[in-house]
Amino acid sequence: MVSWDGSQGNDAAEEPTISAEQERRERELTERVVDSFEGTPDPRLRVVMQALTRHLHAFIREVRLSEQEWQAGIEFLTRAGHITDDRRQEFILLSDVLGASMQTIAVANPAQGAATEATVFGPFFVEGSPHIALGGRIAHAAAGEPCWVSGTVSGTDGTPVAGARIEVWQADAEGFYDVQYPGEHLDGRGHMFTDSEGAYRFWGLTPTPYPIPHDGPVGDLLEATGRSPVRAAHLHFMVTAPGHRTLVTHIFDADDPQLALGDCVFGVKDSLIERFDRQPAGTPTPDGRDLGDNTWSRVHFDIVLAAEHL
Amino acid sequence: MVSWDGSQGNDAAEEPTISAEQERRERELTERVVDSFEGTPDPRLRVVMQALTRHLHAFIREVRLSEQEWQAGIEFLTRAGHITDDRRQEFILLSDVLGASMQTIAVANPAQGAATEATVFGPFFVEGSPHIALGGRIAHAAAGEPCWVSGTVSGTDGTPVAGARIEVWQADAEGFYDVQYPGEHLDGRGHMFTDSEGAYRFWGLTPTPYPIPHDGPVGDLLEATGRSPVRAAHLHFMVTAPGHRTLVTHIFDADDPQLALGDCVFGVKDSLIERFDRQPAGTPTPDGRDLGDNTWSRVHFDIVLAAEHL
Repeated sequence: MVSWDGSQGNDAAEEPTISAEQERRERELTERVVDSFEGTPDPRLRVVMQALTRHLHAFIREVRLSEQEWQAGIEFLTRAGHITDDRRQEFILLSDVLGASMQTIAVANPAQGAATEATVFGPFFVEGSPHIALGGRIAHAAAGEPCWVSGTVSGTDGTPVAGARIEVWQADAEGFYDVQYPGEHLDGRGHMFTDSEGAYRFWGLTPTPYPIPHDGPVGDLLEATGRSPVRAAHLHFMVTAPGHRTLVTHIFDADDPQLALGDCVFGVKDSLIERFDRQPAGTPTPDGRDLGDNTWSRVHFDIVLAAEHL
Repeated sequence: MVSWDGSQGNDAAEEPTISAEQERRERELTERVVDSFEGTPDPRLRVVMQALTRHLHAFIREVRLSEQEWQAGIEFLTRAGHITDDRRQEFILLSDVLGASMQTIAVANPAQGAATEATVFGPFFVEGSPHIALGGRIAHAAAGEPCWVSGTVSGTDGTPVAGARIEVWQADAEGFYDVQYPGEHLDGRGHMFTDSEGAYRFWGLTPTPYPIPHDGPVGDLLEATGRSPVRAAHLHFMVTAPGHRTLVTHIFDADDPQLALGDCVFGVKDSLIERFDRQPAGTPTPDGRDLGDNTWSRVHFDIVLAAEHL
């Protein structure tokens, strides 16, 4: 557990004034570090590292960071590094809960007409998902209520996009993705291609809220700050098509009570909240699939892709 | 190797203007994340996390961080985590080369009269160093030119501090600390206590410049930014005494040519540069130790401890 001992911090209450000599020392140090990147051959890397230096130093100076707090930060990052492996990415979780992932996505996907908004990628995408025929199932052994998902992909001018690749992935009813279980079995994920009219359809699962992995340092941080580790119920999409900006997004369930409580990674956008229509057991399915005594749901999600270059 | 592909970045050259809608989305996101920490029970932790959020988001927005750059950052942190173990601390190295360690030290050790300036702790301190009698040796199998180090410890009012604990550690002539070699053997480190007049003395090694470990992500960053991984020659001190602020510092060698080239962790302060007087072979030693045909050096370092509380 990260220890934050406010009593040992050099906070403003203890040292309300900073002498001119002290101010000069701190400012000179920042300038010296910024200058050290002056010789960076790649101009973009120089800009990034100099800005990172200025903001990092400004943070340390503003909060009057104590050495104990610095140490806690080093220990936090070390724990995050050690818990991270091929299946667990604590640094992405950290970026997510600090809203850094969403801010990067906002910057990288500037508003463009009616284009569908992007949201977090998350740590659970994996390469090599199975190909699903239109109308097929992405969940096999994965538990959950069947959900018929359909919609279209078009450009901002309304032209349907045929052959768009739609990658979908989601947690099961227990709140776990396939990669969180032992073994190599993929489930609850797949990719398909839109038909000649830009339409797509598949059977997924009605999404349910679930906590992000919170048995590591990021979970401890959320607990220490009184924040919920729960993500609003969602279904992941990544849509790619030539000439269009790749879209990474989710749809959220309008009936999910977690929406009011907040999403721990700040992924929710009003425009991504869709109605999942609950269907009583026995209601005929769109493709005649027999679901026996099971309830099911259906949702429609029309996707608008931004142009790759404006 | 971290890949920074400037050509894929959303830099200012590509998108010089940010629409009002885009500006609003980015600002609202930052506010939402800051607000999420409002319920943090520990008020100090709330201040730290809210400031961290604001500075992190400001950095992302200012440089228009691309998703590829974000990914490179995640990979960088992951590599740093995986190379870090009981003997290698890549996150401290990262903090050091960004000047974050020195800025934290500057903030935590405000200027106080003639008090000796602090500098970086570094990753090579270990608990449990051997106790050395005054005048004893800290280096045994460690290679290097013997160096007689002596001085006094006093308070800012000039009163000698008896019984102050002085912890010293240093690299050998190859530029490696004991913990960088295989095995558990401690060498080139020790602790002693000042005598009744506040004096101390020991045999160490004349320090030599050495590179920080640069076969990991921090080394790659230094290379990509055209920076030297070399630290100016130095000898580490940590001095503790009741009623005084713990001092973590170095002394640097006035004759070290690396001083002009810069220290990769920004640890040098003019006040910490001391003259190491080179002694020809055969020069009698202060304690009568026979050094045979070896040259040696001597340095005097008077330490002034700040009061614990002003």
